[in-house]
Amino acid sequence: MTDFAATRARFQIPEGVIYLDGNSLGPLQIGVSERMAGAISDEWGGELIRAWNSAGWMTMPRRIGDRIARLIGAETDSVVMGDTLSIKVYQALAAGLALVPDRRVVLSDSGNFPTDLYMAEGLLRSLGPDYALKVVAPEEVADAIDGTVGALMLTEVDYRTGRRHDMPALTKRAHDAGAITIWDLAHSAGAFPVEVAAGGADFAVGCTYKYLNGGPGAPAFIYVAPRHADGALPALSGWMGHAEPFAFDLGYRAGAGVERMRVGTPPILALAALDAALDVWDGVDLGELRAASITLSERFIVEVEARCPTLSLASPRDPHARGSQVSFHHPEGYAVMQALIARGVIGDFRAPDILRFGFTPLYLSQEDVAEAARILADILDTGAWQRPEFQTRGLVT
Amino acid sequence: MTDFAATRARFQIPEGVIYLDGNSLGPLQIGVSERMAGAISDEWGGELIRAWNSAGWMTMPRRIGDRIARLIGAETDSVVMGDTLSIKVYQALAAGLALVPDRRVVLSDSGNFPTDLYMAEGLLRSLGPDYALKVVAPEEVADAIDGTVGALMLTEVDYRTGRRHDMPALTKRAHDAGAITIWDLAHSAGAFPVEVAAGGADFAVGCTYKYLNGGPGAPAFIYVAPRHADGALPALSGWMGHAEPFAFDLGYRAGAGVERMRVGTPPILALAALDAALDVWDGVDLGELRAASITLSERFIVEVEARCPTLSLASPRDPHARGSQVSFHHPEGYAVMQALIARGVIGDFRAPDILRFGFTPLYLSQEDVAEAARILADILDTGAWQRPEFQTRGLVT
Repeated sequence: MTDFAATRARFQIPEGVIYLDGNSLGPLQIGVSERMAGAISDEWGGELIRAWNSAGWMTMPRRIGDRIARLIGAETDSVVMGDTLSIKVYQALAAGLALVPDRRVVLSDSGNFPTDLYMAEGLLRSLGPDYALKVVAPEEVADAIDGTVGALMLTEVDYRTGRRHDMPALTKRAHDAGAITIWDLAHSAGAFPVEVAAGGADFAVGCTYKYLNGGPGAPAFIYVAPRHADGALPALSGWMGHAEPFAFDLGYRAGAGVERMRVGTPPILALAALDAALDVWDGVDLGELRAASITLSERFIVEVEARCPTLSLASPRDPHARGSQVSFHHPEGYAVMQALIARGVIGDFRAPDILRFGFTPLYLSQEDVAEAARILADILDTGAWQRPEFQTRGLVT
Repeated sequence: MTDFAATRARFQIPEGVIYLDGNSLGPLQIGVSERMAGAISDEWGGELIRAWNSAGWMTMPRRIGDRIARLIGAETDSVVMGDTLSIKVYQALAAGLALVPDRRVVLSDSGNFPTDLYMAEGLLRSLGPDYALKVVAPEEVADAIDGTVGALMLTEVDYRTGRRHDMPALTKRAHDAGAITIWDLAHSAGAFPVEVAAGGADFAVGCTYKYLNGGPGAPAFIYVAPRHADGALPALSGWMGHAEPFAFDLGYRAGAGVERMRVGTPPILALAALDAALDVWDGVDLGELRAASITLSERFIVEVEARCPTLSLASPRDPHARGSQVSFHHPEGYAVMQALIARGVIGDFRAPDILRFGFTPLYLSQEDVAEAARILADILDTGAWQRPEFQTRGLVT
């Protein structure tokens, strides 16, 4: 049995804060500062350049990749860390399209996170005017998969609404039509049991600063199904993905398996923080995590709907059709969220009118969730959100 | 006058080590651990998601970019941080080629760092079979610039030999032939006064973990000449380079100026370490740095050539034709370097036979350099490098 009291004790949530924004930036855990201090002082400071060998720096992207692999249902040696999610989307899509050279269409949906669409735009422009990005509504994806589609590129869980695609079903449909699939797991990894291997995904990518709590801007991951790993030609062919980086050949030869998806020099300090943050998962059963997460989100919906008649649910009502977040519409959502944050309940706002709340039993209790709903109701009942200080937007909304 | 005794006091070089490998990984400074601890505990831990605004996370890539700009002779607002050098090479080359749509050749040299060539290979494959990468010997570059060349892509200082290209002259020649220039400053930034604006460079890129001491895998930078900044279309069009990232538009619109060269979520912890590491430059005059660096490298050459007849100089003898490193050939260079490291003198080896030593007055004294030469001579005189433990290669050589 997963001991969620023990996982809660690892997180350093500030006094007076109920943190419902782990779907944007997971909170800090005990042990991360210490691991970082060691990486800086003992490894970088003490070992200097020798740490690439002596502290295992060179192999961190694969070693940590294997820790992620367990959380997303991937085979050992199929995941590697590095770069940002945007870069990993580009790599996966480029490699995927190269596997279906007679196809010219990338199919995605309007619920995808915009950077995935932007990166696809940039790649397709490089590939030439024959290529096209087709964006349909989420519910139209299945019917839009036809014989022209080369790559189906989707984010499993919608960043605004939390609506979850059926990965195995859509993957099968894509394969039946001769297409390759690229799944973005940004709001999936660490949120519930993901099954990339069982689901048949060809490529998957994700970030580690949300439900995996790796820290602001923590490195991304890429999964390449083993059946493709030695055939996928990297578009971003950097020296760390070369078969022999330290041979310093003038020509590129792709490394073995997923290793070829490495690009530049790995971000060691960020990887050290992530590595420490992942320790919490060692005792966690993902099925139990999912069940507890559903209990939390269902409780929140019940409490909010009972108390806040001006909010309307933006997420699917069926918890199995959601990721691990719950969203509500409110026409003045930005100001409501600012007022809520000022009271210590931290969620976030997504344009145009979405209040977004993330749930994880790793550090949230039933009491937290009920208290958050009570404070939200109070802000709406009293109109506290109408105060001028809650209307001004920052760079990040 | 730059106070090099004061800069030396900031670096935490382990007792007994003479560090001549800052051209690969700069050493740790006092203040970096503290800044990182603050970024982790106070910003991430205490502010959580709010730190994107309250701790200025969102603007770090540009703010630190301006600190780099001063060191490379760039205009304010022309440099932005992020990703790795490999990724920045790809961005710069893609944007450069898009500015000369009638040209199909990228010219580089065999002294370029391999990842630059590999990234170009990957990009040109995406762009189509008309595009070609032409690699000539370093001394043949000037004559190879003709009307077919779209982009001249060079690393200013050769990673093996330290040979330095004449950036202004080659840039002028490229411009006269209608080509765009991309300069890799990996071994230039922080090594001597770089003048990207005065030299007319169109794009420049670099890493920050060498002479800028930003830490292992620290974020890279990209410079875009202001005359190109609003016309350069990003190939890696990520959400952070969008004109309004938090509008979450489905279509990409490039941000203003160099901002468009941002890609994904910035690596905040790594940027915090870099930011602290850059403080040492506040009191440094780059002309004085260069003069002192030449004195160090000249002393090393004199001492080594007097004591080590089996070594032959691989670097240009004229210090103005070098960056801030000195290299020697030895047929058993790998083992010699291992023996040297075991004695506390840390340089590095580059295949096939190069012993490489980096010099900076920021933390090296004349005595350090003379002592390093004495130890090197002793290892060669006694044949200590022939011991079996010095023959085995690690992952990183």
